[in-house]
Amino acid sequence: MTGRTQVRARVAVIGTGVIGRSWMRVFTRAGCETCVWDPNPETIAAAVTWHDAESAIDARPATVAGRLVPCRSLEDALAGASYVQESGPESVDIKRAIFSELDRLAEPNAIVASSTSALDMTDITAGLPGARRCVVAHPVNPPHVVPIVEILGGRATDAAAVSATVDIMRAVGQSPVVLNFYVPGFLLNRMQAALVREAIDLLTRGVADADAIDAVIRDGLGLRWALMGPFGVANTNADGGVREYFTRYGPSFERLMNDLAPNVRFDAALIDRVGSATDAMEGGADREDTRRWRDRLVRRVIELKREDPHP
Amino acid sequence: MTGRTQVRARVAVIGTGVIGRSWMRVFTRAGCETCVWDPNPETIAAAVTWHDAESAIDARPATVAGRLVPCRSLEDALAGASYVQESGPESVDIKRAIFSELDRLAEPNAIVASSTSALDMTDITAGLPGARRCVVAHPVNPPHVVPIVEILGGRATDAAAVSATVDIMRAVGQSPVVLNFYVPGFLLNRMQAALVREAIDLLTRGVADADAIDAVIRDGLGLRWALMGPFGVANTNADGGVREYFTRYGPSFERLMNDLAPNVRFDAALIDRVGSATDAMEGGADREDTRRWRDRLVRRVIELKREDPHP
Repeated sequence: MTGRTQVRARVAVIGTGVIGRSWMRVFTRAGCETCVWDPNPETIAAAVTWHDAESAIDARPATVAGRLVPCRSLEDALAGASYVQESGPESVDIKRAIFSELDRLAEPNAIVASSTSALDMTDITAGLPGARRCVVAHPVNPPHVVPIVEILGGRATDAAAVSATVDIMRAVGQSPVVLNFYVPGFLLNRMQAALVREAIDLLTRGVADADAIDAVIRDGLGLRWALMGPFGVANTNADGGVREYFTRYGPSFERLMNDLAPNVRFDAALIDRVGSATDAMEGGADREDTRRWRDRLVRRVIELKREDPHP
Repeated sequence: MTGRTQVRARVAVIGTGVIGRSWMRVFTRAGCETCVWDPNPETIAAAVTWHDAESAIDARPATVAGRLVPCRSLEDALAGASYVQESGPESVDIKRAIFSELDRLAEPNAIVASSTSALDMTDITAGLPGARRCVVAHPVNPPHVVPIVEILGGRATDAAAVSATVDIMRAVGQSPVVLNFYVPGFLLNRMQAALVREAIDLLTRGVADADAIDAVIRDGLGLRWALMGPFGVANTNADGGVREYFTRYGPSFERLMNDLAPNVRFDAALIDRVGSATDAMEGGADREDTRRWRDRLVRRVIELKREDPHP
């Protein structure tokens, strides 16, 4: 699924919050010299501590030990780096300011990528001389556990920069996918929002409680979706594949889709309703324990798929 | 997750197509005497052959061997059965006719359940003397692999019949969830339709190819959804849990939800587009091999969760 090509390139991780620190592990595990910088030195120190602890429990150890290089300046972090992964705040003004600096200081041939989950690279790089080498590389949190990365350029981005980013992501063990153009939420958050909207509507209408709604995913649909996406699943749902499946059930799907939830408003009443229902479901489980369990089991599911891949 | 209480009750499986034959395995694995009947004797014979082959490869073997009893008549199949699982055609007229017979012939205290994925038990049992003991128990295909079962009554169903069905499903190793009232598609197919609609729209708009859309699920969202549903996932997405997550990202979710796909029409052009894209993605993989792989890995993921449950 994910090649373990050994990479010894130098990369830069700019912004070392929750996403940035996880990218640090992606790159050091792949053998990269990983130069890191954040405007807040305490954030860098905390990320390095986190990185070293996480590396010790990573079930997928580095075959070539990479090197983590905390830097005192943005210039130092970018010097010699062939790939830059930016994970700063989600504001177009802030990203424009950061990308202006990154484009000015990065090596002439370096790829400059943003972890943004929402912004359009066309907006971030408007007027930027090096817009051609700027791409979105949006991970799922945390990227050192969940491999998918959504990759797309802005209008001024070279196709070669997109394909080079795909190659780099594969080389460091991630699963890159390419979007042909910008849509809000990209692929992942659109499909997630579609499902979350329906889940919230089912809860607030009182059709079932949060645990029942969650169980339908974790003991039902999610078991298949960990292996195949919606097209792969549909293709196994009839002997004649997806054509037979959608021909036979198309009218039922259309009726059902016409009945799905309208938009929901995340006002205080809704958030309290969802919060109380989720509290009742979780029964006081420690959130950090749950996250560690999630990451441990995600790794094991990925391992299962690597040992026994799709035929 | 699913208790392995030993059950030695007698149950009846009525209708032995793809869903019914899988129910046969659920019940024999749990140690039940499983009486089976179908209007077509050849379908029964094929289901018995399938059942025996599937039992041999089931990674979750019976602790008490159940017994499969093919029957020559509906009366024979129902005699002495305390639970009846009907898996006939998805037509309200046919279901009404079947339930009329089942109610007339089943033991007075037996629960009579339907595998329907779409129909309302209120409609199926309109005017039926035994409507109080009739419930929907909707599985995911195939139920002997995927444990979730959606359970709900019609307007005339006793609450005790719903809770007895929950107990029976738990006792045979399934994961039952209860709906408080009927909605088209129940929980599972509504959430699935919401995601499938967005996936199809992303494909037909040309945002990405089928493999990219599927990869975002199988190497991204699906890895978490095999462990936690949408509320559990949202609750781990911020240090302050789901309240903090939806407070912070509510406005982004609202904007994104306003931009999601409108309904799609499953016309010939759409089905051909999806079919071609799925063919290109699957690259000629044998559908039966893919199904066997899916079932094998679903079983292993369930095993992982059993060995290392949610804290």
